[in-house]
Amino acid sequence: MSRRMLVVSAHGADWCTRAGGTIRKYTAMGWEVTVFALTFGEHGESGAYWRDHPGTCLEEVKACRKAEAQAAARALGVKDIRFFDYGDYPLCLDEARLRRLNEDILTLRPHVILTHWLKDPFNLDHEVTAKAVVRAVSAAGMRGALPDTPPHFIPDIFFFETTMPHSEFNRFQIDTYVDIGDVFEEKLAAVRLFAAQPQLVEYYTRCALNRGVQANDWSRGRRTIRYAEAFKRYVPYLGDLLPLTELEGESL
Amino acid sequence: MSRRMLVVSAHGADWCTRAGGTIRKYTAMGWEVTVFALTFGEHGESGAYWRDHPGTCLEEVKACRKAEAQAAARALGVKDIRFFDYGDYPLCLDEARLRRLNEDILTLRPHVILTHWLKDPFNLDHEVTAKAVVRAVSAAGMRGALPDTPPHFIPDIFFFETTMPHSEFNRFQIDTYVDIGDVFEEKLAAVRLFAAQPQLVEYYTRCALNRGVQANDWSRGRRTIRYAEAFKRYVPYLGDLLPLTELEGESL
Amino acid sequence: MSRRMLVVSAHGADWCTRAGGTIRKYTAMGWEVTVFALTFGEHGESGAYWRDHPGTCLEEVKACRKAEAQAAARALGVKDIRFFDYGDYPLCLDEARLRRLNEDILTLRPHVILTHWLKDPFNLDHEVTAKAVVRAVSAAGMRGALPDTPPHFIPDIFFFETTMPHSEFNRFQIDTYVDIGDVFEEKLAAVRLFAAQPQLVEYYTRCALNRGVQANDWSRGRRTIRYAEAFKRYVPYLGDLLPLTELEGESL
Amino acid sequence: MSRRMLVVSAHGADWCTRAGGTIRKYTAMGWEVTVFALTFGEHGESGAYWRDHPGTCLEEVKACRKAEAQAAARALGVKDIRFFDYGDYPLCLDEARLRRLNEDILTLRPHVILTHWLKDPFNLDHEVTAKAVVRAVSAAGMRGALPDTPPHFIPDIFFFETTMPHSEFNRFQIDTYVDIGDVFEEKLAAVRLFAAQPQLVEYYTRCALNRGVQANDWSRGRRTIRYAEAFKRYVPYLGDLLPLTELEGESL
Amino acid sequence: MSRRMLVVSAHGADWCTRAGGTIRKYTAMGWEVTVFALTFGEHGESGAYWRDHPGTCLEEVKACRKAEAQAAARALGVKDIRFFDYGDYPLCLDEARLRRLNEDILTLRPHVILTHWLKDPFNLDHEVTAKAVVRAVSAAGMRGALPDTPPHFIPDIFFFETTMPHSEFNRFQIDTYVDIGDVFEEKLAAVRLFAAQPQLVEYYTRCALNRGVQANDWSRGRRTIRYAEAFKRYVPYLGDLLPLTELEGESL
Amino acid sequence: MSRRMLVVSAHGADWCTRAGGTIRKYTAMGWEVTVFALTFGEHGESGAYWRDHPGTCLEEVKACRKAEAQAAARALGVKDIRFFDYGDYPLCLDEARLRRLNEDILTLRPHVILTHWLKDPFNLDHEVTAKAVVRAVSAAGMRGALPDTPPHFIPDIFFFETTMPHSEFNRFQIDTYVDIGDVFEEKLAAVRLFAAQPQLVEYYTRCALNRGVQANDWSRGRRTIRYAEAFKRYVPYLGDLLPLTELEGESL
Repeated sequence: MSRRMLVVSAHGADWCTRAGGTIRKYTAMGWEVTVFALTFGEHGESGAYWRDHPGTCLEEVKACRKAEAQAAARALGVKDIRFFDYGDYPLCLDEARLRRLNEDILTLRPHVILTHWLKDPFNLDHEVTAKAVVRAVSAAGMRGALPDTPPHFIPDIFFFETTMPHSEFNRFQIDTYVDIGDVFEEKLAAVRLFAAQPQLVEYYTRCALNRGVQANDWSRGRRTIRYAEAFKRYVPYLGDLLPLTELEGESL
Repeated sequence: MSRRMLVVSAHGADWCTRAGGTIRKYTAMGWEVTVFALTFGEHGESGAYWRDHPGTCLEEVKACRKAEAQAAARALGVKDIRFFDYGDYPLCLDEARLRRLNEDILTLRPHVILTHWLKDPFNLDHEVTAKAVVRAVSAAGMRGALPDTPPHFIPDIFFFETTMPHSEFNRFQIDTYVDIGDVFEEKLAAVRLFAAQPQLVEYYTRCALNRGVQANDWSRGRRTIRYAEAFKRYVPYLGDLLPLTELEGESL
Repeated sequence: MSRRMLVVSAHGADWCTRAGGTIRKYTAMGWEVTVFALTFGEHGESGAYWRDHPGTCLEEVKACRKAEAQAAARALGVKDIRFFDYGDYPLCLDEARLRRLNEDILTLRPHVILTHWLKDPFNLDHEVTAKAVVRAVSAAGMRGALPDTPPHFIPDIFFFETTMPHSEFNRFQIDTYVDIGDVFEEKLAAVRLFAAQPQLVEYYTRCALNRGVQANDWSRGRRTIRYAEAFKRYVPYLGDLLPLTELEGESL
Repeated sequence: MSRRMLVVSAHGADWCTRAGGTIRKYTAMGWEVTVFALTFGEHGESGAYWRDHPGTCLEEVKACRKAEAQAAARALGVKDIRFFDYGDYPLCLDEARLRRLNEDILTLRPHVILTHWLKDPFNLDHEVTAKAVVRAVSAAGMRGALPDTPPHFIPDIFFFETTMPHSEFNRFQIDTYVDIGDVFEEKLAAVRLFAAQPQLVEYYTRCALNRGVQANDWSRGRRTIRYAEAFKRYVPYLGDLLPLTELEGESL
Repeated sequence: MSRRMLVVSAHGADWCTRAGGTIRKYTAMGWEVTVFALTFGEHGESGAYWRDHPGTCLEEVKACRKAEAQAAARALGVKDIRFFDYGDYPLCLDEARLRRLNEDILTLRPHVILTHWLKDPFNLDHEVTAKAVVRAVSAAGMRGALPDTPPHFIPDIFFFETTMPHSEFNRFQIDTYVDIGDVFEEKLAAVRLFAAQPQLVEYYTRCALNRGVQANDWSRGRRTIRYAEAFKRYVPYLGDLLPLTELEGESL
Repeated sequence: MSRRMLVVSAHGADWCTRAGGTIRKYTAMGWEVTVFALTFGEHGESGAYWRDHPGTCLEEVKACRKAEAQAAARALGVKDIRFFDYGDYPLCLDEARLRRLNEDILTLRPHVILTHWLKDPFNLDHEVTAKAVVRAVSAAGMRGALPDTPPHFIPDIFFFETTMPHSEFNRFQIDTYVDIGDVFEEKLAAVRLFAAQPQLVEYYTRCALNRGVQANDWSRGRRTIRYAEAFKRYVPYLGDLLPLTELEGESL
């Protein structure tokens, strides 16, 4: 039976830099992962391109960012990446765009959603995206949005890393670390495909190392983690048992 | 290999009323569950006994509460329940008691700890307990507290239900629901053993139903949950994958 | 002298399910109570209708919800209920709608306003409504919005219950319980009139019982409360004395 | 039937400067008001005395402060003021003192309690006092603390003004303004009796004016308030109706 | 070398009443200070004008407020004040207005920005302004918004006073006091130029005195401050040393 | 005229690892810097020593830690480091210790205090220290604590880095970055002197780099920062002007 993960990204590369390792793990297990890139990141993530291509224009930058994101998606086993071209800095999501997002989620019916953290005042595109996702998920749980379409359950929603300028400023509250040591090289290779943002490689290597150090601190020897991605769960976990940290070399 | 869960309870019955269902699931799977009851709940949980036994005294009340708690522990498969007799309302934990708690955790080396929520201004005994547990866990991660004893990793800590007077007042933030439908009758039987608190049965039946309704709301059809216990994870989850909600009738 | 209460409700039934008992008390005392229903709740509150009427359409659902809400209003003595048909999930309130709300409040000049709680991320229609009400009240305190109309004072604003999925998640902070035992049957009869939402009856009976239990816990014998509605005051109380809890069978 | 108000004050003058007007209103109506002064304020409130009496000692300062506080109590109709002499800056409340406070509240059985705001990091004596009061109230609701004494209900608790260095810093959240215009001169006369703190007169005149300005802002013409005291309700209100702001010249 | 300060004000007089003293200090040192007044404050700040000019209209009120603001700007040495006429109560900033603000900041390239505090639920125009400024600053740090324009660094952003109805309600968190004693008369003269708001003079005199009292409390003798303006830093300070409070009569 | 900085550290090395660079800058300018080490960090910071010296005892560990801390102090120009030997994990500060801290601050009369961040639930020794410092500072502002000693003003208090397990978890709110590039090698040399904690070198190099990256992000070209220390101001800044970020190669 097919499993579906949706990743909603304000800009063209966010999904890959913050959650690329986790995404790779799920595609490798056969999950269908879909990325919604609400903008190409034509301003916020394309500084180097603008600087190095004097005389370029918005359309050219967008085309470049689109090609990069598609390549990174392929590299990580993501078969479906959709661009909405809503314009970044500021990204604004009006009623029509909210309804569209609701319908797309209702149609896709994902089991899991990854998106931005809810608080990011210096990068409000992220915050706008996260709030819209929660709102659309809520609306997708009701009838009548699409003819003859039953409501969709509330998927597990995890918020990913908020990096720039710093996660303390955004009060990011981590409650989940995914060990990405086994897929880190693949993630890095995908990040490198965003050639218009060469700084990403160093930035997110350091980020993955830092999260790995934190995870190790929490672990105090239970696991050895070198690279990690950090998340905050939003929708409560429902299960027969508590979701316990996995020890290394054994299963509970 | 043996697995150990520690439940730290401010008063004699808290551990059972808030987490009895979850505890039962783990004892049924063969976990060793230990309960630390820091007080007998000789004031806060014994109102009916005092009222119905004019002329009783503290020692008599404590003896009654101890016997009840031991019976409930047996009923739920808890082989080890320890009473510290620190006095309730107010429960005060000074340096010596904190060191004792540290040493006991270091000796027990639990994989999981359940205790009270960190904020409970109208029932500060609970808050005092929770903060002491976190502090002791932190100290148990360091060397030198006990001769020749290696530090212990940071276990998964989950905070359980804060009920009285109401969880909204205490800003309880639930992120985990455990479905206790299959063990609810056993839990209720244990709760009934606290004969000095006859009101508990109705109170925690309603509580379990309410948490079940909430879990169902979140589920929107993914699972059918009738009775649940609610928790808040404190120590971040570390693992190879995201801790996803379990769907009914399938495993991921 | 006439007293006026305004209840602003995101969807067709919210006003009744969360504050119907309190409303009934005020209409019974001769207050004029007006309800603004910003939407019919054609999606969020009409799941059963959509499911049971395959092939129905938005207009039909709206007509059904409107008739139900009008009947419930009559049942509770509300003579004036107005529908704005702004569309739910998502409900969006743009500048024109905000100005309209300002003008309507300025014209109505209510002494008291009841509306949703300010934080409701999974049901953002509620949050959007509450924020708009506060904003409109603030604007109504200034001159020039309507020709020849003096500004209106800041009414007492109370936020009502946020139920679904759970009030803890929305950080609802209760500071006021209204004992609705004497009007509970009337409220329930009104709730039953929302035939497209048969689940409301059980849901809000349990809610009223739970709030009654909490109120009793706080009371510890001062009052006997079986059913209650919970509110959070927003605008500070101004008076000659402190607003003290009413003891039963006596007046201060 | 007698009504009792308890005011718990960390230092010798706090109760009068922050709540003297409100206290006067209740004594004038025949309430029995009791003040617990946990310390004399021999350091924090006696700077002028120390400066002006070189060579003085703690006992002399305490005696001075006690006499002043007794005079102020008499002036405001407070017949019972008790001094606990626990030492200020820092005021520490250990288990024995907490039990004593519990017993005293249990014996007094107040309908209303006024005390400090819960957050006051630069004047932690206040915070320590407030938390102890809440804890003692909670314990007084349980049996067994005093032989043959039934538990006491949870009184209305209101936190009073936190002034120094500034209420914004302490995140004071006002939800209640009491108009003290009619008793302001009496309050001021009482404040003047604290001769070791001559600065209090100007300080708390300005404070009462500022709170009056705020109350007027909220009122926008409903009432004319010149001097006010500000409070934050802690225990929820329970009643048959909403506690509405009193309009001037009319009763609801 | 020229230094530039930008003050972004929701209404016509906010910039002057809350930061006029600080602005005057910078213009006196030769800084170029620019004011963006997003609206004229034709409703919220013009109550007296509407009341005293029956039959007036929006355009007349705007013209009056514009002339007043220009006069005040001249009085304080502000050479550039721009009016955007976006309409107040409610002030709405859509995508086009956000882009315009981004471009204007990018063109102006200020070293420092003063604007409203981020939280002001009863005066949401202020909150809307502050959030838009932060968003525009963030966007101005990226390339591509304006052809051939390099990105602008993140200026020091300080939020100014939130006064009405009261700063505690808005959770204003002061971390900076500027002593305006030397320019207070000049500020007051400028505030008096807002003839349609005669109440401002008393209001902001009291405000400056209150902030002065607070600053003195913090100082405890280090400085003597009579009038002050209060701010909250938003963007972290970057420097070679800690930004220490200036002692009087000496430099560090 | 002499300037004095006090650094209050829960354990033997905290002051050096978190603020060593900043301290070095002030000692280099001639400030007298005093360190209060409330404990030796004999448990929490000495894991490697315990592990590598089987059979060692508390006194030996303390002696080792003391010698290391003294050497580090000398290396950074700190002439006065005092050890209080209060015992770590848990560090408890009772009334007598609080009074001692008050008296020591009153005698030392520092202009600036650096200490731990106020929130650190997993390392409560830090939190206990920070709260005690604030409380002692407050008490030192009052007369009578020491004979013939005038009260001391409220110094600038800055909270330093909270590292382990992670600053996001502790909600550390940075508002000040000090560029320590010019003294980083000196700091690192001092950190190396804590031979019982060899992991500190790598840990705090990474920390300084991360804070440098953040500071650069904020700067966006205004300054080039490689290594930084991060702080949160507690006592508001008082001055004639705003404390603006220093641009490189120029002074305002």
